[in-house]
Amino acid sequence: QGCEGDMPGASSDSLNANKPILFGYLQSQYDYTFSDPGESTFAFKRARIGVRGRAYDDFSYYFMLETSPFIGSSGDAYIMDAFITYDKYSWAKISLGSYKQPFSLEVATPCHSLVTIDRSIVADQLVAPQRDFGIGLFGGNQYTKLNYALALMNGRGLGVVDNNTNKDIVGRATYKVTNFLTLGGSFRYGYPNTNNTTRSTFGGEFAVVLNNLKVQGEYIYDEGDYNRAAGGGCGATPVELGEKRDGAYIMASYDTKWNVQPVFKYEYFDPNIDVKKIGYQEMMTLGFNYFVNDKIRLQVNYQAHIETHINVDNDMFLAQVQVKF
Amino acid sequence: QGCEGDMPGASSDSLNANKPILFGYLQSQYDYTFSDPGESTFAFKRARIGVRGRAYDDFSYYFMLETSPFIGSSGDAYIMDAFITYDKYSWAKISLGSYKQPFSLEVATPCHSLVTIDRSIVADQLVAPQRDFGIGLFGGNQYTKLNYALALMNGRGLGVVDNNTNKDIVGRATYKVTNFLTLGGSFRYGYPNTNNTTRSTFGGEFAVVLNNLKVQGEYIYDEGDYNRAAGGGCGATPVELGEKRDGAYIMASYDTKWNVQPVFKYEYFDPNIDVKKIGYQEMMTLGFNYFVNDKIRLQVNYQAHIETHINVDNDMFLAQVQVKF
Amino acid sequence: QGCEGDMPGASSDSLNANKPILFGYLQSQYDYTFSDPGESTFAFKRARIGVRGRAYDDFSYYFMLETSPFIGSSGDAYIMDAFITYDKYSWAKISLGSYKQPFSLEVATPCHSLVTIDRSIVADQLVAPQRDFGIGLFGGNQYTKLNYALALMNGRGLGVVDNNTNKDIVGRATYKVTNFLTLGGSFRYGYPNTNNTTRSTFGGEFAVVLNNLKVQGEYIYDEGDYNRAAGGGCGATPVELGEKRDGAYIMASYDTKWNVQPVFKYEYFDPNIDVKKIGYQEMMTLGFNYFVNDKIRLQVNYQAHIETHINVDNDMFLAQVQVKF
Repeated sequence: QGCEGDMPGASSDSLNANKPILFGYLQSQYDYTFSDPGESTFAFKRARIGVRGRAYDDFSYYFMLETSPFIGSSGDAYIMDAFITYDKYSWAKISLGSYKQPFSLEVATPCHSLVTIDRSIVADQLVAPQRDFGIGLFGGNQYTKLNYALALMNGRGLGVVDNNTNKDIVGRATYKVTNFLTLGGSFRYGYPNTNNTTRSTFGGEFAVVLNNLKVQGEYIYDEGDYNRAAGGGCGATPVELGEKRDGAYIMASYDTKWNVQPVFKYEYFDPNIDVKKIGYQEMMTLGFNYFVNDKIRLQVNYQAHIETHINVDNDMFLAQVQVKF
Repeated sequence: QGCEGDMPGASSDSLNANKPILFGYLQSQYDYTFSDPGESTFAFKRARIGVRGRAYDDFSYYFMLETSPFIGSSGDAYIMDAFITYDKYSWAKISLGSYKQPFSLEVATPCHSLVTIDRSIVADQLVAPQRDFGIGLFGGNQYTKLNYALALMNGRGLGVVDNNTNKDIVGRATYKVTNFLTLGGSFRYGYPNTNNTTRSTFGGEFAVVLNNLKVQGEYIYDEGDYNRAAGGGCGATPVELGEKRDGAYIMASYDTKWNVQPVFKYEYFDPNIDVKKIGYQEMMTLGFNYFVNDKIRLQVNYQAHIETHINVDNDMFLAQVQVKF
Repeated sequence: QGCEGDMPGASSDSLNANKPILFGYLQSQYDYTFSDPGESTFAFKRARIGVRGRAYDDFSYYFMLETSPFIGSSGDAYIMDAFITYDKYSWAKISLGSYKQPFSLEVATPCHSLVTIDRSIVADQLVAPQRDFGIGLFGGNQYTKLNYALALMNGRGLGVVDNNTNKDIVGRATYKVTNFLTLGGSFRYGYPNTNNTTRSTFGGEFAVVLNNLKVQGEYIYDEGDYNRAAGGGCGATPVELGEKRDGAYIMASYDTKWNVQPVFKYEYFDPNIDVKKIGYQEMMTLGFNYFVNDKIRLQVNYQAHIETHINVDNDMFLAQVQVKF
């Protein structure tokens, strides 16, 4: 539930030595916005460094800093995912600390393994705060048919204590229906600001793997109170939300034999279902990933932003080189 | 004088390789305050990561960041203890950098080895700034009868330069009178704000170890000017102080054979000796430590806050899991 | 182009293991200013920690945080130099990320290998921002006669995105004319604030090595717009600049057989060439470096500040102990 796909401190890291493993990744990026006048910049997307390891047989830990100036409130380094996991029982692993809310396939995808540079708008806007303090129960792994996660979280995000007694309940479960199809659902029932006002969020997801073709999609519906200060995911600017809001995406990618993976994604986000004209947006992302080796990845995306009401010149070209260590 | 009990880079770390050792610890915590309405939150207490090591025979170094959002002024990661030590002569080790003021047994206790989750109020309020820039002379170790520390420090705390020419003198000495009894004293004479106004602080301490029972106590007296901006220890909110103030605690713990260590602590703090009624507080802490192994510790405390003048509903329940790496 | 002299991940680090290498250094310092009243403080100069390594044959990475509270805007830890390098062709290495602008010998000198504690005023004031986001081409190494660097950079410094489309071009080339003489030049043509206003900077340098004696000097000329918010190098307070400004230094050092290296430096800086009387300053630095071993260095400097118009009592004594790891 940190930024890694699997549980921290997997056996492949030869953790028997019980030494902390230094790890992280850096995403160096060039962005061009086709506005008038245009904008362009070199920047970082994510820049993470941390340690993880095993504290004897039944406990592991994960401790990661985000150092990108463009994620977080101040631009300095801060603690992002950090938790202690009691993993004696693979169907009831318990994690205490800060980590991602277990909601949505794309949010759960490690930040260095996203197929497009940005997560979908709906994931960044509605699964917010994406990271939170809490205690969680986790079961399954990449080889099991069923995977589940259930967490009790502050609901206020990182860097702050909870300001109410009620905790948010967040959960997600996925099931491999067949060899090529996985279905899943997520929910969150929380108290973003006070003990009296609530927020309910639901999500559905599917993932299909047919030889080299992967198709995945998600729909997220959200209603009730929300915390403007919690921010959007991964540095996204949070937008004003109405009482009810939703969004969805569908994404297809194909692994070619040249380590190049073309990707296409269509998505929409509606910040206020009751008021159709304002804020509704669609986006198409066209791009490819080139895996130089398992540590270096080049990611190129063109984002066609589509505003149905009043068009804005805000298409973007993004190119990113990532190194993992 | 960092967050470790012993000198950084002890031989058990097989430092002959002269490689920096990555180390740290994470304290994940759940707090419940019995106020009306109640408050509860998941959070971190401390989240530290750093390196230490040896630079050939006579020099060692220690470099640690505090990343907990709840300690320090901004919530981001910052450098806390960092110093270079010339340790050729075990009776005159010299350290240059930032570290804890050598004052009080409880302040000197490594933050991951405290018997209760919080230090005593008097240590957090009067030994402030707990950490400072300076140069110090240290002698003795855990096996010697005598231990002493004497430091010349800015007196302004971390993150700022000194604003006056005079430096603070801080010192502490302890002596093992018998196998089971250690007595000690601390003093500080400083210039918290200007070259003209001074502050004087004195402390006395004892520690008794009788088989599995440990009892320790301290009294601290402090008078004169103080720097409101220096903050309290470990994220404690500094209170207004009068011209003279003092406080004390006594704490007993017992090591049972089940790796459970019950602890009881009684303490008082008087921020203004001349005005008895306002601000005076007592606290009783009842709790236990459970050492799962030498890296994982569970710490549970109930804090009964006693205000003698006007009672406030502010008792607290604290539960912490700590991993060291 | 990070804080290391050579490329990150040199073979001497036995990088075949492809493990990230933890490295950094700490500079603990005591400063005394001969003002009236005097000022003195213990503090850090730089406190850096990071990782570097190799991602298979043709890629290396470098990821370093600055944690000194006295460099940067907020006092907290932040990402400073971080880049991914494609180094298959030693005459056309490509780096993407944040690093120093390739301008001036003294700016290029690793921060832990400076001969005087401070860089020259002209380097700190006119090669600003000293660090920036960009993409660069690098050729040569310490054994080749020619070395060159050419970078396309935001021109806005760290922590912010570029606010204009045009990128700055920065370059430097050096050539070993004979065994003992190296000549070099630097240029920068940039857009500090908008697409319309430009800045042009030129620099010339020489370095002579005659047995144990080293003499180096630089002249830097700069004109046009500049960005006040970009700050001076290494925590230097940026001064107001006129339309044209320049500065120079000459520095001599001598390696004695006792590991002591005396150093003398003379420099001047003119923030506004057209207005001679205001802001013009000269400085003489007298000091020595004592290399205890290759990880520990003591550096002592006396800075005689000379204001030709109105004299100010601001001479400084600086003493620094540095540990590298």
